[in-house]
Amino acid sequence: MVDVTVWNEFRHEREDEAVAAAYPDGIHETIADALDDEHDVGTATLDELDHGLTDDVLEATDVLLWWGHEAHDEVTDSVVDRVHDRVLEGMGFIALHSSHYAKPFKRLMGTSCSLQYREDGGTERLWVVDPGHPIADGLDGSIELPETEMYGEPFDVPEPDRQVFISWFEGGEVFRSGCCYRRGNGRIFYFRPGHETYPIYEHAAIRRVLRNAVEWASPPEGSPRTFGERT
Amino acid sequence: MVDVTVWNEFRHEREDEAVAAAYPDGIHETIADALDDEHDVGTATLDELDHGLTDDVLEATDVLLWWGHEAHDEVTDSVVDRVHDRVLEGMGFIALHSSHYAKPFKRLMGTSCSLQYREDGGTERLWVVDPGHPIADGLDGSIELPETEMYGEPFDVPEPDRQVFISWFEGGEVFRSGCCYRRGNGRIFYFRPGHETYPIYEHAAIRRVLRNAVEWASPPEGSPRTFGERT
Amino acid sequence: MVDVTVWNEFRHEREDEAVAAAYPDGIHETIADALDDEHDVGTATLDELDHGLTDDVLEATDVLLWWGHEAHDEVTDSVVDRVHDRVLEGMGFIALHSSHYAKPFKRLMGTSCSLQYREDGGTERLWVVDPGHPIADGLDGSIELPETEMYGEPFDVPEPDRQVFISWFEGGEVFRSGCCYRRGNGRIFYFRPGHETYPIYEHAAIRRVLRNAVEWASPPEGSPRTFGERT
Amino acid sequence: MVDVTVWNEFRHEREDEAVAAAYPDGIHETIADALDDEHDVGTATLDELDHGLTDDVLEATDVLLWWGHEAHDEVTDSVVDRVHDRVLEGMGFIALHSSHYAKPFKRLMGTSCSLQYREDGGTERLWVVDPGHPIADGLDGSIELPETEMYGEPFDVPEPDRQVFISWFEGGEVFRSGCCYRRGNGRIFYFRPGHETYPIYEHAAIRRVLRNAVEWASPPEGSPRTFGERT
Repeated sequence: MVDVTVWNEFRHEREDEAVAAAYPDGIHETIADALDDEHDVGTATLDELDHGLTDDVLEATDVLLWWGHEAHDEVTDSVVDRVHDRVLEGMGFIALHSSHYAKPFKRLMGTSCSLQYREDGGTERLWVVDPGHPIADGLDGSIELPETEMYGEPFDVPEPDRQVFISWFEGGEVFRSGCCYRRGNGRIFYFRPGHETYPIYEHAAIRRVLRNAVEWASPPEGSPRTFGERT
Repeated sequence: MVDVTVWNEFRHEREDEAVAAAYPDGIHETIADALDDEHDVGTATLDELDHGLTDDVLEATDVLLWWGHEAHDEVTDSVVDRVHDRVLEGMGFIALHSSHYAKPFKRLMGTSCSLQYREDGGTERLWVVDPGHPIADGLDGSIELPETEMYGEPFDVPEPDRQVFISWFEGGEVFRSGCCYRRGNGRIFYFRPGHETYPIYEHAAIRRVLRNAVEWASPPEGSPRTFGERT
Repeated sequence: MVDVTVWNEFRHEREDEAVAAAYPDGIHETIADALDDEHDVGTATLDELDHGLTDDVLEATDVLLWWGHEAHDEVTDSVVDRVHDRVLEGMGFIALHSSHYAKPFKRLMGTSCSLQYREDGGTERLWVVDPGHPIADGLDGSIELPETEMYGEPFDVPEPDRQVFISWFEGGEVFRSGCCYRRGNGRIFYFRPGHETYPIYEHAAIRRVLRNAVEWASPPEGSPRTFGERT
Repeated sequence: MVDVTVWNEFRHEREDEAVAAAYPDGIHETIADALDDEHDVGTATLDELDHGLTDDVLEATDVLLWWGHEAHDEVTDSVVDRVHDRVLEGMGFIALHSSHYAKPFKRLMGTSCSLQYREDGGTERLWVVDPGHPIADGLDGSIELPETEMYGEPFDVPEPDRQVFISWFEGGEVFRSGCCYRRGNGRIFYFRPGHETYPIYEHAAIRRVLRNAVEWASPPEGSPRTFGERT
């Protein structure tokens, strides 16, 4: 039982009918629904006080999932500081899709996190390149998503500790879609799939990955909260 | 509950009184004793048929610990092949002390695994450099061993995936004493401490590391046994 | 000016008319031709004495390129030992295409090096995922090869130190086509393109990669030849 | 010939007689003196306009060395942004000693970069753990510094791409003293030695490391300046 918080920008769903149709309760609720059979799941959104990420919420969170897209800049630096500190203490952090540009992810990576993209609704196939990794547990050799936005290389991130997925796109591109990192005591997973109109987070195999990633990213029992105190 | 096999060369203990005094039942029994409260532990030794590592034994082993020193060359290549295959399938492998030169470890590393050493009985201090790693769970910042054989750099192994421990030696050297790797589906941990006359495996913190390492190296539930079959 | 040796199995070219048409002087001569404007290039083949890789030849080689396919098993273990030792001393090693199963490459990797494949003559596009890497110097964002044999994931190799290329295949697969490693003092590059009938090594961008890889893999001036001597 | 800029806080030397005695012209001039036989070296300091790091200066810099200690917070964020951008474009960055807490280094690492320390003037011995690395070129197996400030683990940085040095300290600690990274197109080296009163940068072997590190960190000829433009 892991204490999970699903964070969502939650703007597209309230501004755009197509998005509201795909995710009527918000992307966060669909993701939470994929996790709450096994875990204790809360949600938080941009327009709540402190974006819903108070000290108390973060203190009680083992793994934070993050979905942002059009309003990365509205996330205040004090909340970014707080999230960053908690990851270094040991909280898991899972950045989804367009959250490659989310402030906490960029802070953790130290790079621009830029990539290529094209909105073309083509097919994506995610290949499992590390079949023994816990995040690939229970999956077949690949996951096919019939309609997606394309993300292409080069993806400006540090060389991943473990590469779990690489995507093939119908239009001719590839992308490192599942990347594992450790920073401080915290585990970080970037997972590409997800979009505001394609119902990616309803897909059974994608939901399985989210559950596996939450298990993998949760801190070990009794792990330390500090790093590098002074002698 | 992990199925563990502790493999020991078991020669020094039968040839040398000082070693027999330190490990009267063999190093394998002392290591097994550190693990068998929590796990299902068997042992195997060089002079058994197939060195005690038949297909059936390996098939039923989740994590194999290995202690060898003076008779690395007597391990037959067919057993090395079998151990190597099982690690790539997902069996964990923990190489202890002088097993840096064990055939299965060298096969997995692809390097000479050479190092410097000096028998001087000086103090060693193992520093935890990755306090959030599961293998460091429950440890203080360092472990002190009053009398040890010195191992020094350069240690010719591939750059570890994670460095958990670095040792300080009274005589002026350092050594990368706890190194994590993944090869195929299997997890590998090299752990330096251990010697045939100093009773290192009776030390409480060292026993804690062995237990943590067994947990870390055990394959995830339902992980695949194959890698790279033909299309 | 780097001392290069290009090793080729040189069997297909003498047994099969289609291969002889693509590479009339042998694959090794086509590769040597891509390199000898800038470097001092020799060749060696399987059916020469010691496979053309005597101590003297290896001693004088800075970078060894290797192309093998149908006769990996005929390479004698004593030559494999010699190549392996020289790589650990600092000689660069570039494994091409089907040489993922070459004995020296498998020895260096420590894994099965297995992969998926399909002979279908489809298009391959190699994406540069690390544009600042010396091996990608002077390339565009991707290299397109109109007809190739497909290689697919999972590719059972250790996580690369640097991933330079990832391939997209028309048939729906991806592959980690350019992988950098260090073992001992030596630099290793696996490069997927190449086939006995498609004239891949005549392609200008592929020839550029071969030249870049030779530069990258050559040992630094005055680097040590030893590792881990005894105190 | 590499275009080098040596940046120094240059406060201690003007405030403290002991520091002025060790480095009468400033630490930057002593470092520049170690490099300018081979390279085109300029300097820049905190109290210059834009800390001496204008767009023009950075545009013309291949490798930037950084020494800061008591005034990290006075470095303006706009200069940090500029340095960070240039590293991702390909400029090398060498962080010295207490610059583990420098803003540009922390930005690139994404971690707290905290460590243990003790001002005790004890002996430090830097062991070369990667003797084939270009930064270790021409060095013996270790470098001894008779009087240093101790830095100890855990050092909260991402797992280095290559570990070149590990330090042994007389007082009982170890430290990962030479750490290589790639971020974007840029190469980064953290090098521990250096202090405001001990004349570390006069030591011949340390000066050799600085020269080697500048060579290693300089961008390859014709490398790209961009990463991840939009399709």
